Amino acid sequence: MGSDSILFQEIQEQPDVIERFAQQGQGPVKRLAAKMREAGIRQVVAAARGTSDNAARYAQYLLGANNRLPVMLTTPSLFTLYQQPPLFAPDTLVLGISQSGRSPDIVSVLAEGRRQGCVTAAITNFADSPLAAQADYLVGLGAGEERSIAATKTYIAQLYAVALLSAHLADDADGVAALERAPDLVRQTLTMNSETERLAERYRYVRNCVVVGRGFNYSTAFEIALKIKELTYTLAEPYSSADFLHGPVSLIEPAFPVIVVAPEGVLLPDLKLLVRQLREMDAELLCVSNEPEVLGLGRTPFPIPSVPEWLSPLLAIVPGQLFALFLAAARDFDPDRPRSIQKVTETL
Amino acid sequence: MGSDSILFQEIQEQPDVIERFAQQGQGPVKRLAAKMREAGIRQVVAAARGTSDNAARYAQYLLGANNRLPVMLTTPSLFTLYQQPPLFAPDTLVLGISQSGRSPDIVSVLAEGRRQGCVTAAITNFADSPLAAQADYLVGLGAGEERSIAATKTYIAQLYAVALLSAHLADDADGVAALERAPDLVRQTLTMNSETERLAERYRYVRNCVVVGRGFNYSTAFEIALKIKELTYTLAEPYSSADFLHGPVSLIEPAFPVIVVAPEGVLLPDLKLLVRQLREMDAELLCVSNEPEVLGLGRTPFPIPSVPEWLSPLLAIVPGQLFALFLAAARDFDPDRPRSIQKVTETL
Repeated sequence: MGSDSILFQEIQEQPDVIERFAQQGQGPVKRLAAKMREAGIRQVVAAARGTSDNAARYAQYLLGANNRLPVMLTTPSLFTLYQQPPLFAPDTLVLGISQSGRSPDIVSVLAEGRRQGCVTAAITNFADSPLAAQADYLVGLGAGEERSIAATKTYIAQLYAVALLSAHLADDADGVAALERAPDLVRQTLTMNSETERLAERYRYVRNCVVVGRGFNYSTAFEIALKIKELTYTLAEPYSSADFLHGPVSLIEPAFPVIVVAPEGVLLPDLKLLVRQLREMDAELLCVSNEPEVLGLGRTPFPIPSVPEWLSPLLAIVPGQLFALFLAAARDFDPDRPRSIQKVTETL
Repeated sequence: MGSDSILFQEIQEQPDVIERFAQQGQGPVKRLAAKMREAGIRQVVAAARGTSDNAARYAQYLLGANNRLPVMLTTPSLFTLYQQPPLFAPDTLVLGISQSGRSPDIVSVLAEGRRQGCVTAAITNFADSPLAAQADYLVGLGAGEERSIAATKTYIAQLYAVALLSAHLADDADGVAALERAPDLVRQTLTMNSETERLAERYRYVRNCVVVGRGFNYSTAFEIALKIKELTYTLAEPYSSADFLHGPVSLIEPAFPVIVVAPEGVLLPDLKLLVRQLREMDAELLCVSNEPEVLGLGRTPFPIPSVPEWLSPLLAIVPGQLFALFLAAARDFDPDRPRSIQKVTETL
């Protein structure tokens, strides 16, 4: 039921999708990076919803840390329903991220950016979409048709586009080379998590959980939580480890499931403290990590290969996708057809 | 157990807190507004956590819609753990919002803003806090000591400070006058929801819920959800109605509780469609509104007085606070001492 789904196939395709991107998709990213330098872009306004918004969250950290660019996740309702969009400084890039390129609210943000004279760019799987039509610079995902309703391969392609943009903008040849090795690392991650179907059984009756990540992997926490909600109808709430301690930690009682995304990097010591604290509270820990100690502290380990922290979101999402898929299967839900949602959601 | 708590007292004090702010606290807000005009501020970077972050969310919509200012909610870890803060344009205001003024991560963002030569401001209940020390402009809340761990009166004071700032910045005398009438409206809201203790009984065994709001009341959805989590240990996830339709709507099954914040305003038609859709799915609806039809569509109505939409977050939070308090009481939890959290949370 799980491994014969379209969703499973699309998760397995992910290494090929970003390999193709590396080989054929870098030109538009380089052109956008060159334009950003030429135009002296000082801030980025990103518009996105759902899974694409989680790719925008990665952009917020990556372009912030590596390119020192403030990235604002904007509020589409100001552009659509309120019709009172903020006025952007002229050195602003307005960036829309959308699988379909068809949600009218995201299109409106780009159209307004263009009206205000900002540089606009779109990251989308559809070059002929309304979003692409409003973009001065189009970065196509080339992920092929995504047939499953839950987005997986287009998400990883969006992350990849963002990471390549950051590396080219910084003229970081090592970063680009690391990204060109990423497809093999995603392949390894799939192999390392081939036991997920068996591991998911334990969680068949879970009713809710939280997913904790921070920094580059704040995006991963949001996207794992979204996959779990969409596919398994379990309430899964994402948190930064810092926000979690400002209140929601009071949710934790023995056996409460917490997925922690804690790969090697500058955040690891802090996340390890949290993992130990949660263990003392007898939470049920599921740990996505490449650090043996963290993996050992969790009841259910999701290992990923060792990589620099900024690259880890490309790998850390993979066990989350597999877990959500197999948890849906363990509950006899059809992972290809989650109830109540369609592939293209058009909101204002 | 509920109505003899300190938390209940502090919720009741809220009208007096903002009345005092209107009478004694407007000077610093006017000075900050004057400086923002003089310095030609074109964007705001807000740093906050927990409840204060929800006040920042209100600022994002209100300063966006009424003052056309882009407001970015920043990512403190870039300033602290990664030590790679984004570089702000010189026409940026860096605004910290914090009850205690003591969380090191929020203080770091202001310190970095100052280092980069930006105007800095703090909205806090403690004029002698480290956050205040980093701020060129200090807006004190004057809310008196908040003894309960869950923030209520400092939240409403933060919203009030943000709303006054927006009105003074726009030189909007009508807006200021409307805000000066707000304390009485909050008093009315308390009276209109005096039945909350009885209504909360029905939800004693709820295990999770979602809270939906949008635009100005996106903040309200987050803050109601946070109060429910902190006080009742129920997983309550906040959503914008648009994001909700991009995936999480698949959670809904008969009897699933959804709190909808849907007051009069430009968003109402959209929210009404959502309320009807949720009703068809047999969700259990709790509606915070001042519109009779929406109140009638919910199983549990939380009425608020009629006000312009931008003012409604000051009122709409009140039934949410009371509901969280009395749900905690219905479960025999002490609302003044939620487990696992302290009044001041210091995160990096």
